[in-house]
Amino acid sequence: MKAKVHITLKSGVLDPQGKAVQHALSSLGFAGVDNVRQGKFIELELAETDPAKAKSAVEQMCKGLLANTVIENYRVDLEG
Amino acid sequence: MKAKVHITLKSGVLDPQGKAVQHALSSLGFAGVDNVRQGKFIELELAETDPAKAKSAVEQMCKGLLANTVIENYRVDLEG
Repeated sequence: MKAKVHITLKSGVLDPQGKAVQHALSSLGFAGVDNVRQGKFIELELAETDPAKAKSAVEQMCKGLLANTVIENYRVDLEG
Repeated sequence: MKAKVHITLKSGVLDPQGKAVQHALSSLGFAGVDNVRQGKFIELELAETDPAKAKSAVEQMCKGLLANTVIENYRVDLEG
């Protein structure tokens, strides 16, 4: 079973990386780009075949390692 | 209009960051996790309202700045 995890900064948390991207895009001549936010995208293969258990395991991984839950949100999607 | 961009390493390209995550998860006691790949997830707000033009603009941004197309793939999804 495959899991896809999106980790994004909570709204209200400053995103200097996103600001840098936005500034670079504007320097390159791309106008009308605003509010750029950069997050992480992690794909994992799990041996677990039960969707409920797999989702709960990945949520534990997010809380324990993948995301900093003070400033980041995570979303888990399962496939197959 | 909002755009969501996923940037992932092409298959076959080594992912040391993913390997480090996989190793850390296994150290934390999460068994059965394999093939961890880490990518980037970027959200942008565009002033452009025409979906076709917006998509083409974001693809140009990916080619020019956001992704290294030698080793990375990108996927653009539009919303709203």
